[in-house]
Amino acid sequence: MSATHTSLVERIFGEPDSLKDNATPLYLQLQSLIQQSIDNGVLNRGSALPAEREIAQYMKVSRVTVKRAISELVTEGLLTQRQGAGTFVAERMVHKLDRLNSFSEVIESVDKHPDSLWIERGIGLASRDEQSRLNLPSGSEVVRMFRVRMADNTPVALEYAVVPRQFLDTPFDVTGSLYEALAKAGSRPVKAIQKLRAVALEENYADYLNIEAGSPVIVMERRGLLADNTPVEYSRSHFLGDTFEFVAEV
Amino acid sequence: MSATHTSLVERIFGEPDSLKDNATPLYLQLQSLIQQSIDNGVLNRGSALPAEREIAQYMKVSRVTVKRAISELVTEGLLTQRQGAGTFVAERMVHKLDRLNSFSEVIESVDKHPDSLWIERGIGLASRDEQSRLNLPSGSEVVRMFRVRMADNTPVALEYAVVPRQFLDTPFDVTGSLYEALAKAGSRPVKAIQKLRAVALEENYADYLNIEAGSPVIVMERRGLLADNTPVEYSRSHFLGDTFEFVAEV
Repeated sequence: MSATHTSLVERIFGEPDSLKDNATPLYLQLQSLIQQSIDNGVLNRGSALPAEREIAQYMKVSRVTVKRAISELVTEGLLTQRQGAGTFVAERMVHKLDRLNSFSEVIESVDKHPDSLWIERGIGLASRDEQSRLNLPSGSEVVRMFRVRMADNTPVALEYAVVPRQFLDTPFDVTGSLYEALAKAGSRPVKAIQKLRAVALEENYADYLNIEAGSPVIVMERRGLLADNTPVEYSRSHFLGDTFEFVAEV
Repeated sequence: MSATHTSLVERIFGEPDSLKDNATPLYLQLQSLIQQSIDNGVLNRGSALPAEREIAQYMKVSRVTVKRAISELVTEGLLTQRQGAGTFVAERMVHKLDRLNSFSEVIESVDKHPDSLWIERGIGLASRDEQSRLNLPSGSEVVRMFRVRMADNTPVALEYAVVPRQFLDTPFDVTGSLYEALAKAGSRPVKAIQKLRAVALEENYADYLNIEAGSPVIVMERRGLLADNTPVEYSRSHFLGDTFEFVAEV
């Protein structure tokens, strides 16, 4: 190691002997150093962590201690592990709750390419449920769309959306952003009520997202409205817990 | 059953023969009827669902079909099952993201009694992490509070909060709401940045909440600020996924 080159492990963990000054358990100290490095940009989102062996050697701690520090940060969703490839800082897509962004816009905001894998799309009679959610008289038709949303070809969310047919003639007009398609028809929602909950992902959905059933996801129900409060969209989306962060400013 | 008395199962499921008119799988139809009954108030939050046997008999479907409908709604967090007691509509506490409410206020809004079980509270030197989160010079003191938040004696969340000591002399002044204690000192936050993610609950936290490790929870990080943007609070709370709903209006 040359004198001018500071290694990543050094920039993250500082002085190897610093851990001894402190009564806090070693794995918690390592955790906190990793968390700080992510917060202050020493470790970028998506970048690789040094190998466990390298951290253990440099910090003069056991590999078990390093493993424990990392595994708790993986559980917390701050780090992700890819089989055979190592440990990475999780990439977070930020969904701002005080703006009305389409899915495509959220993905584009982190310079990724949004795409869709259609599971089902069609036109049907509004159910009692849909009638009440979208203020429709019985006998109305709705357009239903269910798709996997991808960011750079990785599945990151599931989106189920229903739109009264008066605002969207056919689901086949929607190639990318639903909001763009609605904007073209002059009826992009300008207001919305968004409800968020944490749930364990159901098995039939887990397959679409290529993750384990039971993984934590955020379910967001959204009712999008026009300026005069006419509902134009009811959607129910599942967002991967380790990928999305929702931010609200008061 | 008298002619004037409509049973609960009848009010939820309507005509037993209605299921046959529809190509949708039976369990999905049952699910949708239960969901609608919750939405329109036929089934209140916290109330019991009719017994599986009763639903199966009335709707002329197999008990397996009823079980499947119910188990998916349990996974989704809309229903909860208590051992030996049956199936209930989950009670949701609504946390509005466009207002700055204390935990105690959220719990009181559903007419429950808020309480705390203290895990740890103390005074210490601000870590590097806390210094950067709270804009503190090194050598500053902070008050740290970690507690289980209870609603009518049931644990519903974990709250870890750090406040610069200049705003709160001792954690032992906080008996109920932290925001109330800060208000008394003239420094209740008026703005905040709130970040939400879904995570699987860690084992050591699961014990405090008396639920299974791995259960989905929402982690909310909050930085509370005074009108002049001075940070007065950094908190990190874990909210049970099947109990809390976060609502944002745009």
